[in-house]
Amino acid sequence: MSSLPNNLKQIAFFLQRLPGIGEKTANRLAFYFLRIPQDDLEEFAQNVQELKEKTKMCKICLNLTEEEICAVCDNDNREKTTITVVEDVLDLLSFETGNIYTGVYHVLHGKIDPLNHVGPEDIHVKELLRRLENESKVKEVILATNLDMEGEATAMYIKNRIHDVHEKTKKSFKVTRLAYGLPMGANLEYADYMTLKRAIEGRNEY
Amino acid sequence: MSSLPNNLKQIAFFLQRLPGIGEKTANRLAFYFLRIPQDDLEEFAQNVQELKEKTKMCKICLNLTEEEICAVCDNDNREKTTITVVEDVLDLLSFETGNIYTGVYHVLHGKIDPLNHVGPEDIHVKELLRRLENESKVKEVILATNLDMEGEATAMYIKNRIHDVHEKTKKSFKVTRLAYGLPMGANLEYADYMTLKRAIEGRNEY
Repeated sequence: MSSLPNNLKQIAFFLQRLPGIGEKTANRLAFYFLRIPQDDLEEFAQNVQELKEKTKMCKICLNLTEEEICAVCDNDNREKTTITVVEDVLDLLSFETGNIYTGVYHVLHGKIDPLNHVGPEDIHVKELLRRLENESKVKEVILATNLDMEGEATAMYIKNRIHDVHEKTKKSFKVTRLAYGLPMGANLEYADYMTLKRAIEGRNEY
Repeated sequence: MSSLPNNLKQIAFFLQRLPGIGEKTANRLAFYFLRIPQDDLEEFAQNVQELKEKTKMCKICLNLTEEEICAVCDNDNREKTTITVVEDVLDLLSFETGNIYTGVYHVLHGKIDPLNHVGPEDIHVKELLRRLENESKVKEVILATNLDMEGEATAMYIKNRIHDVHEKTKKSFKVTRLAYGLPMGANLEYADYMTLKRAIEGRNEY
């Protein structure tokens, strides 16, 4: 890249910092910027500059929003009795795309991951506990962290901390976890044995 | 994405326009922008805004440059007697990274691709022909378009047009094509038969 114009080089360097983008891809993408109309480039540049200033965390659930309260929490049709706890906003979006869920959320913005030095105090668990202590309407907390090791550890940690809230406030809301089992369209031949084990353990009357 | 802050959405939309980036990836990348320090975002935004204004085509070889003449053409140590014709600047960079080539280039900025409505007049062939007519030092033109169908067609077309220049100017520079054969470290078991055919045809005394 040594002989290239500086702007192009700098754009490629920046793109290399994004996850999953290596040197070759970054170069290819940077060149592609040259083909995009100047107006669109200017608009993009402005969005990038203002991004942090205009993006806030919802005061209730920590979802990302432009206002004080996010669109989900601000929607009177959402059931405030059920809170689904997710690791990040992309997980929240997965629930939202399907229109499969009518409750509200709490976004942790991370998961407990000791190998990467992320402890319980580094993610937003205490905001969840404070919310559970102060809100009276909550009937159920659904732990929807991912099903990998860190997600499991995070769910387990939160479950224990919610137990403390139960003891302290004498509130009796439920704590649930997403169901384990075979995904839709699964082929048993290719299922891993842990998933199969969970699918047998969790079998339902038919 | 409907419930998300507008800047985040717009950044994701923009990134989706880049080649090889789908909706999910674009969302993930847009979120990652939030973790990048504001100073770096501002610098990036400025580079994007100024990109087109500061990036020009070299007046001699059409390589990208900030000056009138690119770093390769402006280098007195490069042999101006040999011109390698490449499809785009990324191909030029592949030659430059290895320090394997000491001549100069001509960048076509495309290839003849009738299926996508790109004809000979849409790529920079006439600039090459004009250059060959006017420059007296040229001894060899290496056609280094890609070895796919469009690259081959482009090479063939340029060869024929250079023949016209030969006729017209009575100059006698060579026209060559990159060697076909097995790539370094190749395993014969996995080589395709066209490559093997070319490798046999082009075999050398050993």
